[in-house]
Formats: sequence, structure tokens, C-alpha cells
Amino acid sequence: MSTSTTMRVALVQIACSKDSDGNLQKAAEWTGRAAGQGADVICLPELFRFPYFCQTEDASVFDLAETIPGQTTEILGAVAKKHGVIILASIFERRASGLYHNSLATLDESGNIAGIYRKMHIPDDPGYCEKFYFTPGDLGFQAVDTRMGKLGTLICWDQWYPEAARLTALKGASVLFYPTAIGWHPEEKDEHGAAQHDAWKTVQRGHAVANALYVAAVNRVGLEKTSPDSPGIEFWGSSFIADPQGVIIAEASIDREEIIMAEIDTARIEDTRRNWPFFRDRRIDAYTGMDQRWGQ
Amino acid sequence: MSTSTTMRVALVQIACSKDSDGNLQKAAEWTGRAAGQGADVICLPELFRFPYFCQTEDASVFDLAETIPGQTTEILGAVAKKHGVIILASIFERRASGLYHNSLATLDESGNIAGIYRKMHIPDDPGYCEKFYFTPGDLGFQAVDTRMGKLGTLICWDQWYPEAARLTALKGASVLFYPTAIGWHPEEKDEHGAAQHDAWKTVQRGHAVANALYVAAVNRVGLEKTSPDSPGIEFWGSSFIADPQGVIIAEASIDREEIIMAEIDTARIEDTRRNWPFFRDRRIDAYTGMDQRWGQ
Repeated sequence: MSTSTTMRVALVQIACSKDSDGNLQKAAEWTGRAAGQGADVICLPELFRFPYFCQTEDASVFDLAETIPGQTTEILGAVAKKHGVIILASIFERRASGLYHNSLATLDESGNIAGIYRKMHIPDDPGYCEKFYFTPGDLGFQAVDTRMGKLGTLICWDQWYPEAARLTALKGASVLFYPTAIGWHPEEKDEHGAAQHDAWKTVQRGHAVANALYVAAVNRVGLEKTSPDSPGIEFWGSSFIADPQGVIIAEASIDREEIIMAEIDTARIEDTRRNWPFFRDRRIDAYTGMDQRWGQ
Repeated sequence: MSTSTTMRVALVQIACSKDSDGNLQKAAEWTGRAAGQGADVICLPELFRFPYFCQTEDASVFDLAETIPGQTTEILGAVAKKHGVIILASIFERRASGLYHNSLATLDESGNIAGIYRKMHIPDDPGYCEKFYFTPGDLGFQAVDTRMGKLGTLICWDQWYPEAARLTALKGASVLFYPTAIGWHPEEKDEHGAAQHDAWKTVQRGHAVANALYVAAVNRVGLEKTSPDSPGIEFWGSSFIADPQGVIIAEASIDREEIIMAEIDTARIEDTRRNWPFFRDRRIDAYTGMDQRWGQ
């Protein structure tokens, strides 16, 4: 980390079309634009190269997967190097025949891959058929060591798990990044939409508070239908950055493509942890049940 | 549990004077009143028999501690039996000479002690000198089995720890009860008060979301000074009950004595967990670092 305690984090909230090369080109343009606006670290949404294909189960979709390194890390690595920034790029990773992951590559200011995280918690709900596509990660929870300090890399469904946040915090992360693809089922939105959206924000703000660090969640926007007759998913945007007390310091709209940016100050983390010293008092002698499925 | 899936939970938010017998009498009256209003389970604030004595360190205060069973469990057990309700009573517990705990007794509808929890996480901050008074709990995290199902018993500082919430949830709790004594340092209130208060609510609402259960936090009210010249602590009341999506369904004022009440429906927990099945996907193979002090 530089002697400065601050860095500027940008989240690139975009819509994702069926043109995967076009989406990658767009990601390159928007990350370049964020760099031009002064960002030091830039994070893209989950699986930004594609419409959210997990709405259905289709084995031909595995054709879309790529290796790491591969095209995405090459193109965005070049952007990172050109602008001297760090880019967090979500990748549908082909690891081997029949073995795919939902992964996040951290590209440093030299364009190199500084870290790979593989999504640890895999959802499977109507319209979110991720267990069909993604093998659960086997690299554990990570904070990637970069010029800008340690960056916590997590993905979407991980955001509901306090364990994921805590273990990443214990690795020294100053920010938890959550590339995300989450939205409303249109038929549920009127009745449950507000509570779902607020729960999503609240649990992540809670991670910021409990760990006294920053949280940065970046989502896509747009209504994506798998067929003209399907209800589809209305991705709710609302990308945000929360500070170490859970206060939202930057927030995007629910429906527009945009870049949001905020300054992260590790001195603020230090100050918060001195005044609310949660790490001092953890009962590590009494947490062994955390690795049990149920407590009875 | 009865065949009904619902119960009414009441939180008794009161001010606490220097008259410990008077405070106990008041607690008996108010819990009786809550029972009269239809409550099935009633929780009092942390250490309600005393002003918050942890503002300073004074060995003579240990005179105030009592055994379990003792006067508090006797008086409130009689109220519980009379009204056929469950009462959660915070107690400054004398366990042995030189060994004191910050404890929570669950009194069932027969007036018996159904469970004892000893505060696991002990704070120590300016004005909250709890490490001087309380030995950390050695009974682990618990859900007390009652006629109204399993009730999670936690205390104040525990509320900042996702581990405490999770381990209690894994024991089968439908509600996490947090008797609390928290407030503003008057000299900090203007600058930090709103963020502190919101962080306190947010982290607990986050526990409700992450574990898909109810959270019930009950605080005291009033400005308590240890001397005429001391700034004191302004206890912020704001007792609340949150539902399994973190929505606040009952909330008290910041400064008035009052009873708040809400209906807890275990069918709602079941429904929430079916639709957001976080427990299904926990990576219990990858959480072993939770019992480490730091991850590096």
C-alpha cells in the first residue's frame, strides 16, 4: 500500500446484452472511464459478459465459459495496465471439462492476475439455477494483496453469509467487494420487492458494521427475459458502498447504467476499530459449532 | 410449543433508579402489565435492577450481585407463574466470591428457571467498564426450550457478533433476545450519535436477515450520571423487534418508558427459509478459520 491511507473505489453498474464480446468491450470502455475519473480500484458486476444465463438450465451455455487467464483477463488486464489501476473482473471460468466456476479475477496495475477467488456459496432458487453451472469454490476466503492494500473478493450469494465476511475480514481486507446479479421476480415485486431489496442492503451494511470495514456491492441493471413469454428478472442495480459503520456513502439508481465512486480510508477503519473493538473480544474458544450444519 | 405457530413477545423499556428493590418491584408491575396486554414472552433490559454501574470501577458494587436462584428469579418467577407467561430477566450474578457474571435467566410459566445464559462477549470502553465486573460466560450459546419454542438468549455486546447470532440460530432459536444497556456519550452525540444508533440497529437487523429469524432488543432509557459533574450516558431506548427479513415490526421511543409488542410467527420463519435457503448452502467445510484470532 502507498503511504496514503486512501484510495478511490469505483463500481461500474451496467446492463448486459447477449453480445459477450460487446459486453467485454463495454466493460473495457467503462473501466477506462472510471480510471479517468480518478478511480484506483474498479469492480464490475457478476458475469457481466452475459445475460444472467442461470435463469434456466442449458448445457450449451458451458460454451461461454473461458479459462483464467483468458480473453477477459487479457483485455481488462490491458486496461488496468494502461491506466495504472486495479480491476476486479467476474469470469465464468472453465477449469476443466465438466468443471466450471463463478470466479473473480483481480488484475493489478501491471495487468497481471494478482488473485483468483471462486464463489464459495452457490445459490439455487427459481430463476437462479447456479448449482447447475458452478462448482463451489475450493480456494477459500481471500483478501488479495495489492498496491492498494488487501482487497476482499466475494461474489453475490456470499453476501448473505456473515462467515464469508468475517473470514475475509480476518485476512486483513479493508473492503469487501461483492459483484452481484440480483433482481426482482416481476410477479413478486409489488408484495415482496421492497423488503427483499432492503434485506439485501441491510445484511451487507451489517457486515460493514460487524467487521468495521468498507463494503462495495455492484449489480447489473435491466429486465432480462429468457423468452418473450417469460417473466424474466428485473435486476435492481442499487450498487452501493458502505463505510465501516454501515453508512452508505455512494449509491446507484435501480435502473440506470452508471459509475459510482467513493473514497476508502484505512485510517477510518483503524479509528472505528479502536472505538468499537469487536475483534478484541471475539470468543474464539466458543465458536467451534460454526463448522456444524445444525446445532442439535 | 403449542400447535399455534404464533406468540406475542413484549419488551419492557424502563428507566432504572438507584433503588434496586424499587426497580425489581417496577419490573414485576410492568411485566404483569405486559402479560395483561396479551404477551406470552416478556423481556426486561440488561441489569434493570441498577443504574448502569459499569460507568466506573468500584469494588463495593459487587455487594449488589445476587445468586441464581435468588431474589430476582423468585419475584419475577412468581409473576411468570401468576400470569402463565415466560419472563427473561437480566441478573448481576454472584457465582462465587470474586466470580460474577452478567446473566440472563429464563423463567417459565411455572415460575421455574428454564435456562441461564451468561454473557459471552464482554465489552470494555470508556463508560462501559464491564471487564472489571463480569467474567466472560462459560455456558456457550443457547436456545432455551420453552412452551413457546426455543428462545435465543444473548446480551448487549453480543449483538455486534455474527457468530453469537449464528450459533444461537443453529440451536433452533426463533427469536434472538438482546437485553441491552447502550446509549450516547453526550459529548459525542451531535457528531456520531446518529451513525452509532443506526449501526446498532443495522447489525442486529442483519442478524435477522442472515438467520431468517426474529430479533428483539430491549434497552433502558434515561440520562444516568455517576456524579453531578459527570457527562453520564444518555441511554437511547429504541427497543425494537425485527422480522426474519430484518423489517422492524415494533419500535419504542428513545426516551420514554413503554412496552412494545409484536407477534412472532414461526411459520414466517419457515416460509422465509424456504425462499431464501441460506442454511442449505453454508460452507461448513471452509469455516474453520472462525476460531482463529486473526487470519494471517
